[in-house]
Amino acid sequence: MIQKLIHKIEDTKAPIVVGLDPMLSYIPEHIKKEAFEKLGETLEGAAEAVWQYNKALIDATFDLVPAIKPQIAMYEQFGIPGLIVFKKTIDYGRSKDLVVIGDVKRGDIGSTSEAYAIGHLGMAQVGNNRCPVFNEDFITVNPYFGTDGVAPFVDVCKKEKKGLFILVKTSNPSSGEFQDQLTGGRPLYKVVAEMVDQWGQQCMGTDYSYIGAVIGATYPEIGKAMRRILPKSYILVPGYGAQGGKAEDLKPYFNSDGLGAIVNSSRGIIAAYKQPGYEKYGETGFADAARQAVIDMRDDIMGALVTK
Amino acid sequence: MIQKLIHKIEDTKAPIVVGLDPMLSYIPEHIKKEAFEKLGETLEGAAEAVWQYNKALIDATFDLVPAIKPQIAMYEQFGIPGLIVFKKTIDYGRSKDLVVIGDVKRGDIGSTSEAYAIGHLGMAQVGNNRCPVFNEDFITVNPYFGTDGVAPFVDVCKKEKKGLFILVKTSNPSSGEFQDQLTGGRPLYKVVAEMVDQWGQQCMGTDYSYIGAVIGATYPEIGKAMRRILPKSYILVPGYGAQGGKAEDLKPYFNSDGLGAIVNSSRGIIAAYKQPGYEKYGETGFADAARQAVIDMRDDIMGALVTK
Repeated sequence: MIQKLIHKIEDTKAPIVVGLDPMLSYIPEHIKKEAFEKLGETLEGAAEAVWQYNKALIDATFDLVPAIKPQIAMYEQFGIPGLIVFKKTIDYGRSKDLVVIGDVKRGDIGSTSEAYAIGHLGMAQVGNNRCPVFNEDFITVNPYFGTDGVAPFVDVCKKEKKGLFILVKTSNPSSGEFQDQLTGGRPLYKVVAEMVDQWGQQCMGTDYSYIGAVIGATYPEIGKAMRRILPKSYILVPGYGAQGGKAEDLKPYFNSDGLGAIVNSSRGIIAAYKQPGYEKYGETGFADAARQAVIDMRDDIMGALVTK
Repeated sequence: MIQKLIHKIEDTKAPIVVGLDPMLSYIPEHIKKEAFEKLGETLEGAAEAVWQYNKALIDATFDLVPAIKPQIAMYEQFGIPGLIVFKKTIDYGRSKDLVVIGDVKRGDIGSTSEAYAIGHLGMAQVGNNRCPVFNEDFITVNPYFGTDGVAPFVDVCKKEKKGLFILVKTSNPSSGEFQDQLTGGRPLYKVVAEMVDQWGQQCMGTDYSYIGAVIGATYPEIGKAMRRILPKSYILVPGYGAQGGKAEDLKPYFNSDGLGAIVNSSRGIIAAYKQPGYEKYGETGFADAARQAVIDMRDDIMGALVTK
């Protein structure tokens, strides 16, 4: 699956993932109105609004980008109807030949991680049948439990040729409280990165491993250091745009071949119509605004990489 | 909600939570056969088997214990049908007046944690309606993101009078890889525990905080040290029985009032019929075996506490 991701990045010339994190406040009024008229101001109504929004966003951007990243929390908050739309979004993305990264940040003790791995990347064995479940291509994983909490995810990736992005250094303001704690003179996230490198060496594609890392866009110095520790791992970089990361800051996350990183933007794309510079699209033009925001983000990042 | 948990522990004299982590391999053949005949060897069939199993286990134990703890991964592995049964299990537990601890171990950056908090403990605002979602009483939370990843869970707890158990030191063999890393001479899990104490002080019930900690049963020395750092927090203790923790080891996790901790057992109760000493119940007597295992666990733990 890492090969597919790389090929698609090369084809689109856009190391970009569209973060499908649909808050109700992002969704245009006309979509919510229609969904609520049909299904009421209920979890079902909210989920229907999310689905119509996602579908329009995918339709408007799928030819420009390699991947989408639905954030499961935004669906889980609407319960079962929300999770049905999470699944529909995965399936719709795959039908458009997009790589689907499930941003689920799961992690637990071994036998429990195995259940999550089956649910998101693998197949559930029921009697004599192997049943696909959510069936993402990649997921994000929380490493707090250590190797035996991560190993079941790695095992399923080997079997199914799927991939992981493991949290190393997150983009939120208080990420440092635990992740930056110095252990033997180096921050904890470095210890985690070294483990990711070890896990990744077990799962090599042609040039890159199936096992990548999540490192926030707001730390170019850390990006540079992590690039050295993880030369063969893809880095998923959240925090561009709305969270403050700039294209110039992203250069250290990439290898000299222009590969090795993929940058997420959520709000900056899916709610572009609310951002400065995109006012002309208005609410009804939200999908066109998202398309333009992808083009602008691609040009911004590729421009910065060329001047490396 | 911490008050309800404490009252129920006092009433039942059983600081025990039944971990509903239903692997298909635990479920007796006659239940699987009936479910598969009805719905096929499908995710729906697997979920139906889990539901019938859970229902019988709750019916056999609800008068003896204060709480159940469904592990969401075991449901998520069967996709939407599995998650529907997760929700039915929560609702059924609540209908029996049990405290329901959702073992979800969620955690993310702030706005995403807020969505998880709404989905599991709060109410989703859809138009003018506030809709309950999964509606557990407590959930487990992963602290790797730091304060701004935990704060949204704390805020929802304050509003809804619900509670958290935050991962401090987990019971799995490689938990030490990151959690035991020395930072300024003390292990990371101590730093986390101190933060849990701070968060907990914002959410006090009468004697105990709504914000508790997860600390594995296999470390009595750590339990003792954590009890001092977290005098007002309930400690959820996994790892008793099948994972190797003994009743004698559990004493340091409790305060001198006999309160302050609640011990989980999953396999040891729900698959008791497969354990040595319970053979006489057989597969069809799985629920009676579970009831007896709860009684044995209660007597084992209370016996150890009395001799403190």
